[in-house]
Amino acid sequence: MPPFEELRVFTGSAHPDLAKAICDYLGIPLGQSHVFKFANDNTFVQFQENIRQRDVFLVQPFSYPVNDNIMEFLIMIDAAKRASAGRITAVIPYYAYARTDKKDQPRVPITARLIADLLTTAGAERVLTVDLHAGQIQGFFNIPVDELTALPLLARYVGQKELLNPVVVAVDFGAAKRARGLAARIGAPLAIMEKRRVGNADQTETLNVIGEVESKIAVIVDDEIDTGGSLISTVTALEERGVTEMYVCCTHAVFSNKAAERLTATNLLREVIITDTLPVSDGKRHPKVTVLSVAPLLGEAIHRIHGGLSIGAMFE
Amino acid sequence: MPPFEELRVFTGSAHPDLAKAICDYLGIPLGQSHVFKFANDNTFVQFQENIRQRDVFLVQPFSYPVNDNIMEFLIMIDAAKRASAGRITAVIPYYAYARTDKKDQPRVPITARLIADLLTTAGAERVLTVDLHAGQIQGFFNIPVDELTALPLLARYVGQKELLNPVVVAVDFGAAKRARGLAARIGAPLAIMEKRRVGNADQTETLNVIGEVESKIAVIVDDEIDTGGSLISTVTALEERGVTEMYVCCTHAVFSNKAAERLTATNLLREVIITDTLPVSDGKRHPKVTVLSVAPLLGEAIHRIHGGLSIGAMFE
Amino acid sequence: MPPFEELRVFTGSAHPDLAKAICDYLGIPLGQSHVFKFANDNTFVQFQENIRQRDVFLVQPFSYPVNDNIMEFLIMIDAAKRASAGRITAVIPYYAYARTDKKDQPRVPITARLIADLLTTAGAERVLTVDLHAGQIQGFFNIPVDELTALPLLARYVGQKELLNPVVVAVDFGAAKRARGLAARIGAPLAIMEKRRVGNADQTETLNVIGEVESKIAVIVDDEIDTGGSLISTVTALEERGVTEMYVCCTHAVFSNKAAERLTATNLLREVIITDTLPVSDGKRHPKVTVLSVAPLLGEAIHRIHGGLSIGAMFE
Amino acid sequence: MPPFEELRVFTGSAHPDLAKAICDYLGIPLGQSHVFKFANDNTFVQFQENIRQRDVFLVQPFSYPVNDNIMEFLIMIDAAKRASAGRITAVIPYYAYARTDKKDQPRVPITARLIADLLTTAGAERVLTVDLHAGQIQGFFNIPVDELTALPLLARYVGQKELLNPVVVAVDFGAAKRARGLAARIGAPLAIMEKRRVGNADQTETLNVIGEVESKIAVIVDDEIDTGGSLISTVTALEERGVTEMYVCCTHAVFSNKAAERLTATNLLREVIITDTLPVSDGKRHPKVTVLSVAPLLGEAIHRIHGGLSIGAMFE
Amino acid sequence: MPPFEELRVFTGSAHPDLAKAICDYLGIPLGQSHVFKFANDNTFVQFQENIRQRDVFLVQPFSYPVNDNIMEFLIMIDAAKRASAGRITAVIPYYAYARTDKKDQPRVPITARLIADLLTTAGAERVLTVDLHAGQIQGFFNIPVDELTALPLLARYVGQKELLNPVVVAVDFGAAKRARGLAARIGAPLAIMEKRRVGNADQTETLNVIGEVESKIAVIVDDEIDTGGSLISTVTALEERGVTEMYVCCTHAVFSNKAAERLTATNLLREVIITDTLPVSDGKRHPKVTVLSVAPLLGEAIHRIHGGLSIGAMFE
Amino acid sequence: MPPFEELRVFTGSAHPDLAKAICDYLGIPLGQSHVFKFANDNTFVQFQENIRQRDVFLVQPFSYPVNDNIMEFLIMIDAAKRASAGRITAVIPYYAYARTDKKDQPRVPITARLIADLLTTAGAERVLTVDLHAGQIQGFFNIPVDELTALPLLARYVGQKELLNPVVVAVDFGAAKRARGLAARIGAPLAIMEKRRVGNADQTETLNVIGEVESKIAVIVDDEIDTGGSLISTVTALEERGVTEMYVCCTHAVFSNKAAERLTATNLLREVIITDTLPVSDGKRHPKVTVLSVAPLLGEAIHRIHGGLSIGAMFE
Repeated sequence: MPPFEELRVFTGSAHPDLAKAICDYLGIPLGQSHVFKFANDNTFVQFQENIRQRDVFLVQPFSYPVNDNIMEFLIMIDAAKRASAGRITAVIPYYAYARTDKKDQPRVPITARLIADLLTTAGAERVLTVDLHAGQIQGFFNIPVDELTALPLLARYVGQKELLNPVVVAVDFGAAKRARGLAARIGAPLAIMEKRRVGNADQTETLNVIGEVESKIAVIVDDEIDTGGSLISTVTALEERGVTEMYVCCTHAVFSNKAAERLTATNLLREVIITDTLPVSDGKRHPKVTVLSVAPLLGEAIHRIHGGLSIGAMFE
Repeated sequence: MPPFEELRVFTGSAHPDLAKAICDYLGIPLGQSHVFKFANDNTFVQFQENIRQRDVFLVQPFSYPVNDNIMEFLIMIDAAKRASAGRITAVIPYYAYARTDKKDQPRVPITARLIADLLTTAGAERVLTVDLHAGQIQGFFNIPVDELTALPLLARYVGQKELLNPVVVAVDFGAAKRARGLAARIGAPLAIMEKRRVGNADQTETLNVIGEVESKIAVIVDDEIDTGGSLISTVTALEERGVTEMYVCCTHAVFSNKAAERLTATNLLREVIITDTLPVSDGKRHPKVTVLSVAPLLGEAIHRIHGGLSIGAMFE
Repeated sequence: MPPFEELRVFTGSAHPDLAKAICDYLGIPLGQSHVFKFANDNTFVQFQENIRQRDVFLVQPFSYPVNDNIMEFLIMIDAAKRASAGRITAVIPYYAYARTDKKDQPRVPITARLIADLLTTAGAERVLTVDLHAGQIQGFFNIPVDELTALPLLARYVGQKELLNPVVVAVDFGAAKRARGLAARIGAPLAIMEKRRVGNADQTETLNVIGEVESKIAVIVDDEIDTGGSLISTVTALEERGVTEMYVCCTHAVFSNKAAERLTATNLLREVIITDTLPVSDGKRHPKVTVLSVAPLLGEAIHRIHGGLSIGAMFE
Repeated sequence: MPPFEELRVFTGSAHPDLAKAICDYLGIPLGQSHVFKFANDNTFVQFQENIRQRDVFLVQPFSYPVNDNIMEFLIMIDAAKRASAGRITAVIPYYAYARTDKKDQPRVPITARLIADLLTTAGAERVLTVDLHAGQIQGFFNIPVDELTALPLLARYVGQKELLNPVVVAVDFGAAKRARGLAARIGAPLAIMEKRRVGNADQTETLNVIGEVESKIAVIVDDEIDTGGSLISTVTALEERGVTEMYVCCTHAVFSNKAAERLTATNLLREVIITDTLPVSDGKRHPKVTVLSVAPLLGEAIHRIHGGLSIGAMFE
Repeated sequence: MPPFEELRVFTGSAHPDLAKAICDYLGIPLGQSHVFKFANDNTFVQFQENIRQRDVFLVQPFSYPVNDNIMEFLIMIDAAKRASAGRITAVIPYYAYARTDKKDQPRVPITARLIADLLTTAGAERVLTVDLHAGQIQGFFNIPVDELTALPLLARYVGQKELLNPVVVAVDFGAAKRARGLAARIGAPLAIMEKRRVGNADQTETLNVIGEVESKIAVIVDDEIDTGGSLISTVTALEERGVTEMYVCCTHAVFSNKAAERLTATNLLREVIITDTLPVSDGKRHPKVTVLSVAPLLGEAIHRIHGGLSIGAMFE
Repeated sequence: MPPFEELRVFTGSAHPDLAKAICDYLGIPLGQSHVFKFANDNTFVQFQENIRQRDVFLVQPFSYPVNDNIMEFLIMIDAAKRASAGRITAVIPYYAYARTDKKDQPRVPITARLIADLLTTAGAERVLTVDLHAGQIQGFFNIPVDELTALPLLARYVGQKELLNPVVVAVDFGAAKRARGLAARIGAPLAIMEKRRVGNADQTETLNVIGEVESKIAVIVDDEIDTGGSLISTVTALEERGVTEMYVCCTHAVFSNKAAERLTATNLLREVIITDTLPVSDGKRHPKVTVLSVAPLLGEAIHRIHGGLSIGAMFE
C-alpha cells in the first residue's frame, strides 16, 4: 500500500514522448496540463486536473532550448506547489549545465549548483535523474536524489554483439569510471584519451591514447555527445592507432551542430548507441544510430518511489 | 565618501546599449565580461576583471528571449557572488512575468514571485527597477527594491505639447492609477476602458468606455505595450466615441507581433511615446514612435545607491 | 479517504462564533484550547487535547485589536508546531494590513508581506482566506494559499432584489475588478469613483464619478468598510449626481469610528450588505445592515482541503 | 574610525524618553520618524530621513501593550530593511515573553524563541538588551546578542547604604544566581524562597525560606516585578521570620495590577530600587520607589558597537 | 492505525545496548546498518535495509567521545535523509554541551544552540531526549522536541526506601527545581548548595549550605555527574554539617576522571542512583551504584510518537 | 585601502604551526584564543581579544582526530559570529570527507556536502582551501570558495630535478587531471593506474597500468596519501613493469597506519614530496620525505582577500 495518495505524471514541453512512454509502463494516463508561451514570450502553465495531495512527478529533460526548458520546469513546479501537490518529484532524464560544476577559472559560475538551488526554491522535493556528468552533482542538492544509470542497458546491448578482441575507450578522464564499468561488464581492457595543450599558444592541443588499442575493436564511451567534436577527434586518433572497428556508447545524445551526420560519416564507426533521455529528433534518426529507451527504467523507478520500494534493488 | 568600494557596472546580453548609456552618465567604463552560449545551448559567463569587494551593478531587462535573459542573469549573479563581489544589485529596467502575479485561476503559478525568489537564491542583494506592472511585486522580494518611475519623464514630454481639451484614458483598471498620475500632472480628466465578457461563450467581449471622451484628445496610458491588441481595440473604441486625436504613453515597449506597425497604422493616433527600458529594435523605429531614455534616471539612482544618498529625493 | 489523520478546528479569541459555525457545518466539535493573557499582558496558549499528526485548522480573522490578534495567532501556530501537529492551516477570514502592500512612499514597510513571513516563520503550512484586498498578497506567501471569494454570495443576494436600472459603482480603482464581477453577475453597467488631489496643498481632494449614474439605483462595491469615510463621500457624490437609491456590498466590515451609524444615517442608502468574516459586534447590528455568513464557504473549503478535493470546483 | 557610516537612533512609541536619554548620552539628535495607528488599528511607520547605509539602532522595550509594541517594532525593522539601512540593531531594554521559554506543560508555545525568530525574519541583524530573564534566550537568536546587566548599577546603589547585617534573598530559584551576584558584591549571605504545592489540590502553596534571615536586613532580588504578588508573599514570609527591614532590587518594573501601591504599603519595606528599562509611569512614582537610569549603559554600548569596541570591557 | 509507514530504530556506535533494549520494549528488531571509521579517521555510514518512507528513529546519546558521536550522528541523519526516510527522529538520551547554553563571558560560543542547528541542517525533523540540563534548550530547536524526564523513575526508587528524616539537597541553583520536584514526591524539605568566589583571587571558592541539614539523611540531586568534583565537595560539606547518611540521584552519569571510584569511597554515601542514558561502562559498575533503565520510557515514547498518541499522557 | 577593518588570524588546535607561519608571512601576531576540552570531553573556545568588526580568518585543517577538529572549528566559528566578527573566513588547508562526495551505493551519506552546510550554519562566510579532492566540492558551498593549488609548488620542485625520461603516473582516474597538469609542466607523458574487481568475489582486485612506463622514471601523483595502500600497490605494479626509479608527489599527507615507513621502505622509491597542509608529525619526518610549505601560498591569499585583490592573479 503506497504511502502517498494517487500517482500523477505530467510532462513539460521538452519531451512528451518520453513522459507518455513512462505512463504506458506505469499503466496510467498522462496528466492533463497546459504549458505554452504568451505572445510576449512569457511561459504559462496550468494543471487541468486536481492535484491536491497527489504524488506528482514532473518530467522534463533539460534539452534544447535549454534555458526555456529549465524556466518552464521551474514554473511548473511553482504551479504544482501552489496547487497543494502532496509531493513533487522533478524527473530530469538529462541534467544540462553539468559541466559547469566547479570554478576552474576565476570569476565563473557553478551553474550546476545554481540550477539545483533554483529547483529547490521553486518547490521540488525530490529529484530522479539519469547518468549525471559528475556524481557530485547529487551533492548539489539537499533533497533526495535518485540517480539511475543507463550503463547496464548499453552494456547488455553491446555485450550481445560478442565482439572479438574489444577495448573500451574513455573519451577523457571524466569518462574513465563509466568506461571501466562497461569494460568490466563485457570483459574488455581499457584505454583512455588524453587531451593536452602544447606550447604557450592556448589553442593547439594534442590527443594521446593511453593504453593498447591496435588491432582491436574499440567501444568508445562517453556520458554525453554534444557537437561530437571530441568524439570525432577520438575516432580519428584511434584510426591512426590501428583500431579495426568502432562503436560509440553514450547515454545523452545532445547532438548539436549536425553531430550525428559528422559522426556516422566515419567508415570504421559502425554504430552509435544512445538512449532517449533527450528527444530523438529527425537529425538523430540515422541507420547507424540505435536508440535504447530509458522509459522502463524511469517508469520502474517512479513506481518504486511512489510505493516506498528500494531503487537500489533495481541495480543489484 | 561612499560606503562601498569602487562601483562597477556590467551588462548581460539583453540590452548593452542601455548599460553603456548608464555608464556614460556615471562617467565610468562598462565592466569587462564574457557572456555567451556554448554549442550545447548552455549559457556561460566570466567576469574579465577583479570584482572582489566591488559594488557590482548588473544590468538586464527581461526582454525577448525572456527565459534566456532571465537564466543568463541568474548565472551572472551566481558568478559575481562566487567571485566575492562586495554587493550585488540586480538592475532590471523591465521585469517580465509581472502579470502572472496572483492565482486568478486554479493551479497556475505566481511566476513574478518565483522570479523574485530565483534572483535572491542566485545571490542578488538589491533590486533596481522601473515601473513594475503592480507595485506589490516589490513585496515579492525581501531584499531592498528601488522602483523608479518613468511617469514624470512621459508627463513632461506630453505636457510640453499643451494639448487642447485632453482626456487621459486608462486601457484597463490596472492602468488607472498610473493614468490618474499623468492626468493630474497635465491637468486632464480621466476615462477608463472596461473589458467585459458577454454571455456564456467565453470568447465574446465588449469594450466599454467609462467616462467622457467625445471631441477630446485622448492620451492613452499603459505600463506596457505587448502585442498592442488591447491598445488597438481601445483606439478603435475611442474613435467610435468621437475622440479627435490620440497619443499613447507607455514605459515598456515589448512590441511583439508587429505591434508598432499595427498601432501606427491608425490615422488618428499621432504618436507613441515609449522609453528604452527594453532594447529599441528596428521594429520600433517608426516616425510615429518617440523613445525617451531612462539611462539618466537609472544612472542617477545607481550613483545614489552607491553613495548612500536618498532615491526618494529624486522624485520630490 | 482523507490523506491526513483526523481534522481539528481551533479558534483564537478574535471570532469564536465563526469557528463554531464552521464546526457546525463540518459536524465536528470545536477543538479545546486555552487562549488568554497573563497579568503582565503576555498572551498564552495551550491546546487541551492531543493534536499529534492531526490536520489542524486555526481560525483567526485579523480584527480589532489587530496586533493582539496577529500575535496571539502566531503564538497558537508555534504551540501547534511544537505539539507535533501533522499539518497547520492558518484560516484568516480577514487579512489586515493588506493596504500596506507596496512602497508608494520612501522608507515605509510592506507589512502585508511581513505578516506573511511571520506566519510562515511561526509554522503555518497553508493559508485559507477570503477576498484579499489585492490578489498579489497570495504571492507574498510561498506556502499554498486558497483565497475564497464572497462575491457570489453577495451577488446572489443583490440579484434576488431584481433592481430596476441598476449601476454598480466601484469606490476606487482598486475595487473596480470586484465591482465588474458583481456587475456582470447582475447584468449592470459600471461606474468608478476617482479621488484626486487638487492644487499644491496636499489636503484638498475632489471626488469624480467616471461613468453614468443619473436616475439609477447604485450598488456600491468595496472589499472592506473601515471608517466608512470614503464610502460616505461616495454616497454624497452619487446623491448629487442624481442617483435614486443606494445599496452597499462589501465582504469585510471593519466599521471603526461608528461607521455603521454614519452610513445608515443617509436616507437614500437602503441597505448595507456585509459578511461575518469579522466579528459582528453590536455596533454593526442595525436594521439596515444585512449580514451573510461565510461559515458554509469556509467549512466546505476546509472539508475539501482535508480530503484532497478541488477548491476550484466550488466556484465553477 | 568606525566601520559603519553615520549612527542613527530611532524610537518606537513604547519608551521615547529612554531613546532620547540615550541620544543625549551619545550627543546626537533622536532620528526623525512617524509611528502611529490608522483608524483601522493598523500600525504604520515612516522614517523621515534618509537611512541608506546608516548604522541604525531602533529602541523599543516590550512594555504594555506588549503585542502592540512588538508588532510595531517588527514593522519598524521591516521599513528600515527596505529603506536600505546599512545595519539594523534591535535595542530591547526589556524582553517580554521571557518566562515562556520552555515547554514545561504539554502543547504550549516557546514564545521567547518565536519572538527571536520574528525579529530576525523582519530584518534585525543584532540585538542589544538588558538582564534577560534567562541567559539562554541569547541562544534563541542566531544573530549577535549583547546582553548588558544593570546588576552593578543596583549593587553600587545598595552598597552605598552600608546596611548592617544584610542578607540577600532570591525570590525564587531563577533569581538565585542574580542574587548571589549582588550578595557577593555587598558581602552578604544568601537566602532563597521556595514555593511548593501541598497535597493533591493544585491550588495550595507554601512558601519556605531556605537559609538564615532572622534579625537581618533583607535585600530582595528579582529580575522583574510584575503584579508584585510573589514579592508580597516573600515580604510577608520574611516578616514572619523576623527580618528587621527590607529593600527590593529589580531591573525591570512591569508593575501591573497596582504593584507599586501594594508593595510600598508594607511597613518594613523601606525602598524599591528599579531601573527605567520600562517606561516609568505615574503609578511607579512613589516616594519609596527609586529609579536608576540605564540610558548611560545603553548609550555606551551603542557607542562601542558602532565603533567596533569591546562591550565586555564595560563590565571588567 | 499509525499515520506513518513502518517504524524502524537504528543505533549509532555510542550506545547500542540502549537501542536494543528500546527495540525489545517495542517488540521489533534493531535496524541493520554499518557505522564505522575508515583508516583516515573519516566516519562512514550505510543503512543495510530500505528505509524509504519509513518512520526512522536514530538513537545516539552524546557520550564520550563526544565530538565523534555527534559527527557520526549528523552523518547518519544525512544518510537517512538522502535515502528518502519518511520522517527522521533524533533520539538523544543525553544531550552534551548543554552547559554551554549562554554567553556568560565575552566571546564564547553557545554550543548547545549550535548543535541544535547542526542537527536540523543534517535533516533531523524531531528530537526525543531526556532531562535536558536547561529546559530552554528545547527552544534552541524549531522542530518538535519531546523531553522526557527520569525524575519519577528516580523518585519512585528513592521513595521505596522510606528514609527517616530526609532532606533533598540541590548541588547548585541549576539543580534546585529538579530537587524540589523530587522533594515534593518524597515529602522532604529542601536545601541548596551555594558556591561563591572569595576575595580578588579568582580561584578560591567557598561552598555554603543554604537550609537545614543537620542530623538528616541527604538525598543529593543533580542532572548530571561529570568528574564528580562538585558532588564530592558537596558530600564533604554536608558531612561537616552533620548529615547522617547520603544518597545521590542523577539522570546522566558521565563519570569522567574516575568519578565513580572517588564518589563511592566516601563512607556516609550509601548509594549512587543513575540511569542508562549513557553507556554503563565497567567503571560505573560498583556495588554502591544502582542503574535504572530508561529504555521503557524511550520505547513507550517512540511507540506514541509513531502512532500519534500523547506523550504528555505518560507523565500524568 | 582594505574594505574591512583590521585583519586577525586565529588557529584551532589542529595545526598551530601552520597558522603561525601564515602570520609570519603576513607580519602580524597570531590572534589570542583559548581552545580546549573540559573533563567531560566538551570542547570550549574563547577569543582573548576583541574581534568586533574585524576581518577574522580561522585556520584549521581537518586532520586527525578528524571529527574533533571539525567540531572544534564549528564551535570557533559560532563563537566568532556571536562575538560580532565583521567577516569570518574558514581557512581549511585540508578538507576531510572529500571522498564521500556522492551516493555511489544505496543509503550512504554525502558527508562532504554535509560538512559544507555545517560550516555555513555555524557562520562561515567564505572558505579558503587547498587542492580539494574533487573541484565540485566548491559547489557544495553557496558562499565564496577560494581553492588554491600546491601543484605549481610541487611541479617546480620536481622540475628542478631535471629527470631523464620521466613519466607521470596517476594513481587512479580521480588523480588523472592533476597528474596531467604536472606532466604538462615538466613535459612528460602520462600513465594511469586502473583498479578493477575480478569475478564475483568482491574482494579480488587487479591493478592495470594504462600507458607506457617501462624503463622510465615514474613521478606518481595523488592529491592525498592516506594509508598509502594503493600507492604501495602502484609502486609494486610499476616495479613489475620495469620502472627504474620513482618519486611521489602529493599535497595532503594524511599518513595513517605507518604509511611513511611502508612507503619509504621500497628501494626504487627515491623521494616522497608532500606539503604541510596537515601537521607534519614525527612519523612523517623521514630522510626520504620532503615537506614544502603552503604557508606563503595561504598567507598571500589571505592578504589578497583582506585587501580586495585578485586571487586568480596569483596563478597566472
